[in-house]
Amino acid sequence: MDDLQAFARHIFESQPFSRFIGAQLTNAGPKDAELTLPITDNLKQQHGFVHGGAISYLADNAITFAGGLALGGNALISEFKINYLKPARGSHLVARAQAKGIGKRQVVCQCEIYAVEDGEEKLCAIAQGTVVPAS
Amino acid sequence: MDDLQAFARHIFESQPFSRFIGAQLTNAGPKDAELTLPITDNLKQQHGFVHGGAISYLADNAITFAGGLALGGNALISEFKINYLKPARGSHLVARAQAKGIGKRQVVCQCEIYAVEDGEEKLCAIAQGTVVPAS
Amino acid sequence: MDDLQAFARHIFESQPFSRFIGAQLTNAGPKDAELTLPITDNLKQQHGFVHGGAISYLADNAITFAGGLALGGNALISEFKINYLKPARGSHLVARAQAKGIGKRQVVCQCEIYAVEDGEEKLCAIAQGTVVPAS
Amino acid sequence: MDDLQAFARHIFESQPFSRFIGAQLTNAGPKDAELTLPITDNLKQQHGFVHGGAISYLADNAITFAGGLALGGNALISEFKINYLKPARGSHLVARAQAKGIGKRQVVCQCEIYAVEDGEEKLCAIAQGTVVPAS
Repeated sequence: MDDLQAFARHIFESQPFSRFIGAQLTNAGPKDAELTLPITDNLKQQHGFVHGGAISYLADNAITFAGGLALGGNALISEFKINYLKPARGSHLVARAQAKGIGKRQVVCQCEIYAVEDGEEKLCAIAQGTVVPAS
Repeated sequence: MDDLQAFARHIFESQPFSRFIGAQLTNAGPKDAELTLPITDNLKQQHGFVHGGAISYLADNAITFAGGLALGGNALISEFKINYLKPARGSHLVARAQAKGIGKRQVVCQCEIYAVEDGEEKLCAIAQGTVVPAS
Repeated sequence: MDDLQAFARHIFESQPFSRFIGAQLTNAGPKDAELTLPITDNLKQQHGFVHGGAISYLADNAITFAGGLALGGNALISEFKINYLKPARGSHLVARAQAKGIGKRQVVCQCEIYAVEDGEEKLCAIAQGTVVPAS
Repeated sequence: MDDLQAFARHIFESQPFSRFIGAQLTNAGPKDAELTLPITDNLKQQHGFVHGGAISYLADNAITFAGGLALGGNALISEFKINYLKPARGSHLVARAQAKGIGKRQVVCQCEIYAVEDGEEKLCAIAQGTVVPAS
């Protein structure tokens, strides 16, 4: 499992878009993953909240890593769905994804995205998606 | 309608995340919107394709603008779903969203995202989501 | 709250399609609902498993009731997404939905659908959707 | 192709749930399918409209058949998402699904569901989902 976590970190660090946005893979378990994203001005929309596109990036990538860890190797996200619950602001976002249904051909994951403001986590989006083995 | 398009462009240009990523609002109609995103190295994942998170940003924002134009004013995306069809590479991405079901309380939009390589458009993702009036 | 549960049961019992399929509202809380559906031959697909359409009915209706209970009154489901995890067979299905994000204008719910075979629950589908107040 | 259509009809006719609900497979093409469902009292919810669960059955099954025809054989729906646009009433419902992204490992389909009242089709729901080959 240590090897798998190291593998996950290696993959994550080789994603230019994750570096560009400023995200970090802050936890990787046998079937779950946590990403953290400091909120900078670059990530905002016109009202000063985090843009939905930055939140959807977190859902996409946290689901991909949770699914890939559950599958034990290279994996791709094939689809996901996200519901926005409230505007996101604060110091950073945390996305936690967990594999719920694990098969050989697909893993279905759920993901919760929290905005952390003054040390308090507020649920701002939930997502659900499918990860498949890379062919 | 010219005013509405100008309003849409004004909103788009005041989104720091859209500028940061490098996206442009290249068309705005009474119930549809087109976004264009030049593919730069910053937008890629570990295999050199565009990261799903950048594609999901396009879906989120194209749907938001198509829905907002159909609603005629300030609007929010409440949820969307995206399916990735093939890896995205080339010179740029184009996302086209269209309002399909227009009510007072919600507009449901479909969105197609194309990767343009050597001048040829290839469908690389489709999305569907809901836009509601800003309260 | 007793009144709200009685209200939920009254609504459920006045749904011809729920009676036709044979579903029961087996639990109703302040922000969650449980539906139970005995598996009969009428509900099956060509391989003898429960048809996805019967499972999607359960997701649709369990989400609607969980959301309506959280909203405190008449409500409509506006959208949902479902992932099928494994073929469903056994004596009955149980769908449990829970409101996760509760606002005035919408409630977002998650739902798990289990197939019960020889007394053992197996997770066969998960869903996520939005409920809005009836206008 | 005639063989494939005959194969599709044979599969459809061996689905007890489709017979129970009263649906018919009214068209089957190389990558699309149409289902028709007469509106009977059994299919309604508490306000006299067609229950969302009956509409979601149509989306599930039309997507499955369109995807299976595109894949050329036995197939399963792995997930879908549906947005309800307006209450459904009239003489019957028609669901038309079309494969949009066709690969070896998955087909992604869009589906439109119309309510037909006094001979006029009204779009009442749209859906999008994934079909995979049966293993």
